[in-house]
Amino acid sequence: MPKKLVKKNIEKLPAYLPGENPRHPRVIKLASNENPLGASPKALKAIRETLHLTCVYPDQSSHALKESLASRFGLTPQNLVVGNGSDELMQFIAAAFLNAGEEVLISENTFSTYEFVTRLFDGVPKFIPLKNFAYDLEAFSEAITPKTKLIFLCNPNNPTGTYFDDASLKKFLAKVPKGVIVVIDEAYSNYNDASDFPRSLDLVKEGKDVIILRTFSKLFGLAGLRIGYGISKPEINRYLNMVKLPFNVNRLAQTAALAALEDASFLKKSLQVNNEGKKYLYQELKDLGLDFIPSQANFICINIKKKADLVFIEMMRDGVIIRPLTSYGLPNAIRVTVGTKEQNKKFIATLKAVL
Amino acid sequence: MPKKLVKKNIEKLPAYLPGENPRHPRVIKLASNENPLGASPKALKAIRETLHLTCVYPDQSSHALKESLASRFGLTPQNLVVGNGSDELMQFIAAAFLNAGEEVLISENTFSTYEFVTRLFDGVPKFIPLKNFAYDLEAFSEAITPKTKLIFLCNPNNPTGTYFDDASLKKFLAKVPKGVIVVIDEAYSNYNDASDFPRSLDLVKEGKDVIILRTFSKLFGLAGLRIGYGISKPEINRYLNMVKLPFNVNRLAQTAALAALEDASFLKKSLQVNNEGKKYLYQELKDLGLDFIPSQANFICINIKKKADLVFIEMMRDGVIIRPLTSYGLPNAIRVTVGTKEQNKKFIATLKAVL
Repeated sequence: MPKKLVKKNIEKLPAYLPGENPRHPRVIKLASNENPLGASPKALKAIRETLHLTCVYPDQSSHALKESLASRFGLTPQNLVVGNGSDELMQFIAAAFLNAGEEVLISENTFSTYEFVTRLFDGVPKFIPLKNFAYDLEAFSEAITPKTKLIFLCNPNNPTGTYFDDASLKKFLAKVPKGVIVVIDEAYSNYNDASDFPRSLDLVKEGKDVIILRTFSKLFGLAGLRIGYGISKPEINRYLNMVKLPFNVNRLAQTAALAALEDASFLKKSLQVNNEGKKYLYQELKDLGLDFIPSQANFICINIKKKADLVFIEMMRDGVIIRPLTSYGLPNAIRVTVGTKEQNKKFIATLKAVL
Repeated sequence: MPKKLVKKNIEKLPAYLPGENPRHPRVIKLASNENPLGASPKALKAIRETLHLTCVYPDQSSHALKESLASRFGLTPQNLVVGNGSDELMQFIAAAFLNAGEEVLISENTFSTYEFVTRLFDGVPKFIPLKNFAYDLEAFSEAITPKTKLIFLCNPNNPTGTYFDDASLKKFLAKVPKGVIVVIDEAYSNYNDASDFPRSLDLVKEGKDVIILRTFSKLFGLAGLRIGYGISKPEINRYLNMVKLPFNVNRLAQTAALAALEDASFLKKSLQVNNEGKKYLYQELKDLGLDFIPSQANFICINIKKKADLVFIEMMRDGVIIRPLTSYGLPNAIRVTVGTKEQNKKFIATLKAVL
């Protein structure tokens, strides 16, 4: 009976396999690219000071947060939409712009929610292979047809850590016809240190049909609270705000995000730990003779030349949770979050023991 | 240009007008049916004790909360889905079951999100008038056509406070053909004291095609956190869990809801304050010669025989925020949340002064 009840496309929705959560305090989790230093202390202080308002509905538009972001970016609140995590913003994009049967260009080996929201609104995903583990923007532009409506780009890419640069993006955008919206998911862009990384805000200011997505889940350490934001020109942004439920962002997330933006010393320290950790891990992986991809994010994608699902289980037994990339289409690769010095050491020791 | 970008139905989405939030500490808000006693103290304690996990993604399935609810209800976790507020669950229902062009039966003068989610997924809302300010289940059953897919019922109804009883619901369900899902939004059911209020969980246990929605925003005092749940048989519930984004419910809401369920003394006191407040308000409104509707919820709908939008502004100037019901299609009525004794007195004094 439910077979006839349910919509046709629902059975095709990709299931999301989350990072395993530790069940023992000694176990370390390097599986979900969370901040190993925890949450911004200023954010936690702000939450404590807001607890008496837990019973009150949040501000429908997250106005204070939009104001703060806008002034940082030289934009206005009309350029911003706040979501219950940046994945919810992907859903808004499909809800507002994707008509049934329209095509959506999505890379292979990338974040699965692009496909999820596409199917949820009866769009047709078209998958473009990676080239040397990086987005192949040339192939994306060749795949555009008159039915193309949305293009999802992840920069840096989750789970490979590769990026495309400003010149490549501009060259690509020049080939995208009017009426196609390009979404640039920059969940990990805070970690990049590439001087030629796209200056994506400029594209919004120039009036391009792009939507930039960012999150407080990674560098700011607020994954548990669910908050991210989208940036686009007002003519696009207006519709994203129209398709959202009124109280999509909880009050504690709003207040925490606002405070985390001001927490310069925490952000600086988090970046420093990440950069030092990457350096250490690169060297150790080299010494182990393993192929890995230099990363612009807070994780490293490693070719372990073995079934990642098995290595995952063996490492978990030894107290380290990493992410096997089987569900990302890379069955012999793992993704490890850059942790604290101690966590990175334990990861390397465990990897050595298991391989 | 955005005109051709955006989906056709988006411009028809009803805008939600939230309760105004006070900008001055002396102003009292009786506009959004929040708990006047605040949040469950046990919930706030649980939040404080979970703050160190703010940086970690929440449990994808809200499993601990589902276990607790299931054991209370004599159900299993497979009967439950947890949402970012119960309004998100309405969206899941449309996402999972509503094909474009299918009809959805919705009452007039009720919660606007039923229409919102219907239009979001290209359904066709059919509106059924209230009868004596109550749901007209007879008219609902007569409006069913072969194109009907979903029926949204709100019990007790927001904003009138009326309810339909167990016998009426059963009589109605007997006339609903297979393949039509009946959603019963019980956001306010915790407050009812009617001995013939529907025993809706029994319907799920009997395998009926119903989905019950409940929330932690009202009696439990967690509106700011965004958490609600849906109850249905596993064959239906399965699909609701498939259309949700993995981390839709934030970690602090999960932990707070779990603790609030155990906070018997807070819940008892909240009900007591509500019952005493209703009694007081009924008497005062009678003395003022105003028509009001006896309520099974934590609010009262009052016919003020004047433009509610104007009365709203005048009362706000005097420090009391109520809800004018213009956007609910009742332009001469207001909805007031039952507050504390002091708040109720201030409301009556202000209403007297303004009318």
